[in-house]
Amino acid sequence: MSMGVKEKLSPSTFIGVRGDNIISFGSGQPDLPPPPEAFEVLPHYRDFRYGLIQGMLELRQALAAQYPDSTPESVVITNGASEALDLSLRVIGRKDGPGEGKVLMARPYYYSYPETARYAGLEPVFVRTVEGRIDLDDFKVKVGSCRAVIINSPSNPTGRVEAVETLKEIERVTSELGVYVISDEVYKDLIYVRENYLINGPRVVTINSFSKTYAMCGFRVGYLWSLDQGFIDEVIGMKTHTSMNTNILGQEMALAATHAPPSFIEDQLEVWRTRRDLIYRGLLDLQLDVWSPEGAFYVMPRVENPRDFVWDLFHDYGVITYLGEWFGSPNRVRLSYALDVEKIKTGLDRIGRYLALRP
Amino acid sequence: MSMGVKEKLSPSTFIGVRGDNIISFGSGQPDLPPPPEAFEVLPHYRDFRYGLIQGMLELRQALAAQYPDSTPESVVITNGASEALDLSLRVIGRKDGPGEGKVLMARPYYYSYPETARYAGLEPVFVRTVEGRIDLDDFKVKVGSCRAVIINSPSNPTGRVEAVETLKEIERVTSELGVYVISDEVYKDLIYVRENYLINGPRVVTINSFSKTYAMCGFRVGYLWSLDQGFIDEVIGMKTHTSMNTNILGQEMALAATHAPPSFIEDQLEVWRTRRDLIYRGLLDLQLDVWSPEGAFYVMPRVENPRDFVWDLFHDYGVITYLGEWFGSPNRVRLSYALDVEKIKTGLDRIGRYLALRP
Repeated sequence: MSMGVKEKLSPSTFIGVRGDNIISFGSGQPDLPPPPEAFEVLPHYRDFRYGLIQGMLELRQALAAQYPDSTPESVVITNGASEALDLSLRVIGRKDGPGEGKVLMARPYYYSYPETARYAGLEPVFVRTVEGRIDLDDFKVKVGSCRAVIINSPSNPTGRVEAVETLKEIERVTSELGVYVISDEVYKDLIYVRENYLINGPRVVTINSFSKTYAMCGFRVGYLWSLDQGFIDEVIGMKTHTSMNTNILGQEMALAATHAPPSFIEDQLEVWRTRRDLIYRGLLDLQLDVWSPEGAFYVMPRVENPRDFVWDLFHDYGVITYLGEWFGSPNRVRLSYALDVEKIKTGLDRIGRYLALRP
Repeated sequence: MSMGVKEKLSPSTFIGVRGDNIISFGSGQPDLPPPPEAFEVLPHYRDFRYGLIQGMLELRQALAAQYPDSTPESVVITNGASEALDLSLRVIGRKDGPGEGKVLMARPYYYSYPETARYAGLEPVFVRTVEGRIDLDDFKVKVGSCRAVIINSPSNPTGRVEAVETLKEIERVTSELGVYVISDEVYKDLIYVRENYLINGPRVVTINSFSKTYAMCGFRVGYLWSLDQGFIDEVIGMKTHTSMNTNILGQEMALAATHAPPSFIEDQLEVWRTRRDLIYRGLLDLQLDVWSPEGAFYVMPRVENPRDFVWDLFHDYGVITYLGEWFGSPNRVRLSYALDVEKIKTGLDRIGRYLALRP
């Protein structure tokens, strides 16, 4: 293939690329199926009318029970975490101050954050990270000019989890300034090092979804939670015009998924932990500089000439990895370990052979 | 109830209001179910992964076959027509000229048009209508300063259908100016007076959905079609960050619905025609000033003191109607006839009794 393709690498280069001999560390979606409960609602489902814009009451009740001081009014069901993020930023973008229309986010970042901020008329501002975690000093310098901050712990793409002390300090500083905190916790049930810590505060908006915990990516059921009722009402008002209710059957499946036994989530976590240990150990054995993965299902090693790494591994070894540059981190690559241990072993072996032969 | 409620009437006043004795001419959704084909895919469905952002290939193939010179690349599947409209306006809002960031739309308008235009940073501008149809002279005066126009024929809320000559003249004028035409054709299969006329042009974006033709409102499957491939690509780029793929199961159901026999749509049209004749005749018999309903399932009579009409009919007679003011038409009310003929008769009878006793 031509140099042109290599120069223009993007996630879409790899979309639809499948094959028995391809090992993909690319896409960030679980490979294991949702709980069977989710599919059990399908055979006899016959509803077809509009649902409530805010989302199905029973589903919001089930979710409100997981958050402190909450009622079903505190929750809005959305088309995945993506729409929850987009609506939140659009509502914030239409507000007056505080701040100068800027949104603070850690770099490396999830690749939709800067774009959705810009779509909402806001300017992304990046906070420095140390070993993949937020540098609090830099955060405090920059937060004063921002209207909102996005926190993503565990993080896609770094796989890192912020220290609880850091999150508490962020709570304190943003609360004093009246800055919105959008806390993207879609990986909150995939933490290997501690319990999740829910960021609290009057202007906190927590985003979550059924895509990672329940492997329901394709059904696009996410939600946002906040105790700022005015904010919730503005989100509902906007969603009334921009997409109306979230797919009613997806919501019914999500509600059924919440009835899966707790062992479903615990068992998933053990599967992920085994894979994490395997890939982390494997990358260390290859002498790669890599942060210890603490949550989600990503590792982000530093590599020489990342573009060659990604392209040559794909073209010559059938291994898909993602350029760190897509996440604001040009010296690294991202590997998702959402695939079974045999494939992880094969992929590591190929990466090892590539690195050994590399000029 | 207090005067306060009456002063603050909004569509949400009536959401969730149901009862054996309530006759609702309010909500605009079909009461008859989708084709059985749509539900037949459910029992054995087991997929759960992300789908293509642009939408399922087979569904786009089925839709492309309905549009001239089209390929599956010309179509994007969205979360209902609402998201198709929102994405289209957002993409247009981010472009440079022509026009001054204004969007032209007929008044009375579907109530999401002005709001979604404003959300996209565009200013809604209203074209005058005569008997519920676009005044071409006024259109030509105003279109020169606009970046896009929205056409909605058949129209919600008026139930009117534009003359084919009008649509061709709009094609000509907008094409010369390079103005985008967003043609919302969600009621294209519900026209009682002629075949649908598909607006053509290099900058035409046609919006449609499975909500009205196939009664699949709650599943939120819509789409947009355009031969402007750059525009399509921008929509896909934005949707990648703002909602990702449309619910995969909703798309599978929509594909199955396209396999329903043509008699499904023809039979529906006859049901609607019977209801239309009944309500139109009934409102004329009540001496109301009402435009002949030509498409969709709405009528929009002129009434004295519309706020009293809507409130008193609801409160004292159990009949729900919508204020024309929500659609930019303060002297009228909107009635949807998406309910069976017995209920329409009962509702008309109550309206007659109310009008007879009105001070």
